[in-house]
Amino acid sequence: MLTLFHHPLYASCRFVRLTFGEYGEEIALIEERPWARRKEFLSLNPAGTIPVLLAEGDHVIVGATVIGEYLDETRGAYKREKRLMAEDSIARAEIRRLVDWYLVKTDGDVTRHLVRERALKPLMGGEGGGAPDSAAIRAARANVRQHLKYTNYLAATRDWLAGPRLSYADVAAAASLSVLDYLGEIEWAEYPAARDWYSRMKSRPSFRSLLSDRVRGLSPASLYADLDF
Amino acid sequence: MLTLFHHPLYASCRFVRLTFGEYGEEIALIEERPWARRKEFLSLNPAGTIPVLLAEGDHVIVGATVIGEYLDETRGAYKREKRLMAEDSIARAEIRRLVDWYLVKTDGDVTRHLVRERALKPLMGGEGGGAPDSAAIRAARANVRQHLKYTNYLAATRDWLAGPRLSYADVAAAASLSVLDYLGEIEWAEYPAARDWYSRMKSRPSFRSLLSDRVRGLSPASLYADLDF
Repeated sequence: MLTLFHHPLYASCRFVRLTFGEYGEEIALIEERPWARRKEFLSLNPAGTIPVLLAEGDHVIVGATVIGEYLDETRGAYKREKRLMAEDSIARAEIRRLVDWYLVKTDGDVTRHLVRERALKPLMGGEGGGAPDSAAIRAARANVRQHLKYTNYLAATRDWLAGPRLSYADVAAAASLSVLDYLGEIEWAEYPAARDWYSRMKSRPSFRSLLSDRVRGLSPASLYADLDF
Repeated sequence: MLTLFHHPLYASCRFVRLTFGEYGEEIALIEERPWARRKEFLSLNPAGTIPVLLAEGDHVIVGATVIGEYLDETRGAYKREKRLMAEDSIARAEIRRLVDWYLVKTDGDVTRHLVRERALKPLMGGEGGGAPDSAAIRAARANVRQHLKYTNYLAATRDWLAGPRLSYADVAAAASLSVLDYLGEIEWAEYPAARDWYSRMKSRPSFRSLLSDRVRGLSPASLYADLDF
């Protein structure tokens, strides 16, 4: 069984867990607190970031999109209609664009800040903790709407977010929005097409382990694990 | 001929230009000022980021790593020993890790801040311009050393940064460091192995167009275009 260094509230780590789930493969999870900059972990990944996968032969694979490509090459390519990548290069570029959108742009505009200020700072202590920065929370909340609107637009105009089939784009978006949903930051009623799409994602067996995630000191929003939200 | 929307001081855009150069293919360049959020450009890429490639059939390919994968699938895969990606999945993951290191981590720790504060703010006017933030410059300069040290370590222990062959890792690192070099932010004498590696990169024909880049209001450092620096 492969091992993933992760944190439950990092969208990029959830992306990898969902991918393994979609491919029906169990993994061992090790919760890493990247802000602690643990020596043994830095020797695996000098960037100090998560996720990090210990793959076959204990080869170290660093970063969500890099792990995604690795899993496509070593699993997805043999999964036929269950593959999370397209065959065609233009369709692949569209999937990758949306993976970047959710794991980089949504993360940088919204998710990372809300997670840090609301969930992680109380855990960080002398390693960057302290009182939440209310200006950072306000700025992130002002950005949430744009990302939900865009998701709603994609969900309303396509079968799945990147086109006719479930892909890494859906996995990345669901990973990202599920973190915001844990924090109760999404007004689903305003985004009916996105809600319908998210409801389909949330019902997938790959989602189960995410829905049972709990972070010390911060319970999930009341409907987080509810399939009828 | 394909068209690239770019800015000369964005490492991610230089990465794409160098890749086309390595594959011996000319492209049309359109200089985009992403901070202006031009409507026509936002309709191509709602994220408003560069680089954006207009590929065959005017398909829009967004983002440096996405364009890199596209070019590998449509060009690199047929280039034999000139290919900038490895064949083996583990080696590919190492190349991708380093591309992310330079285009995401180095950019976020160092390059983006120095470029914005020193080069772009004077051009931005009412679209985010103003006096340079000296605290941001200090913080970025404190981070430069770590990235040069790491590059020096890689260059000292491997033929090329990701292994035995020139790859996207070298292209990403050279793209990133060439921007810092334009700004005169690198003390090459302290990093002899990195300097030797950069000297090899700088001498490649693909580099010529970068060395003739000039940004309004900010001349390059004196040895920027000098192959004997």
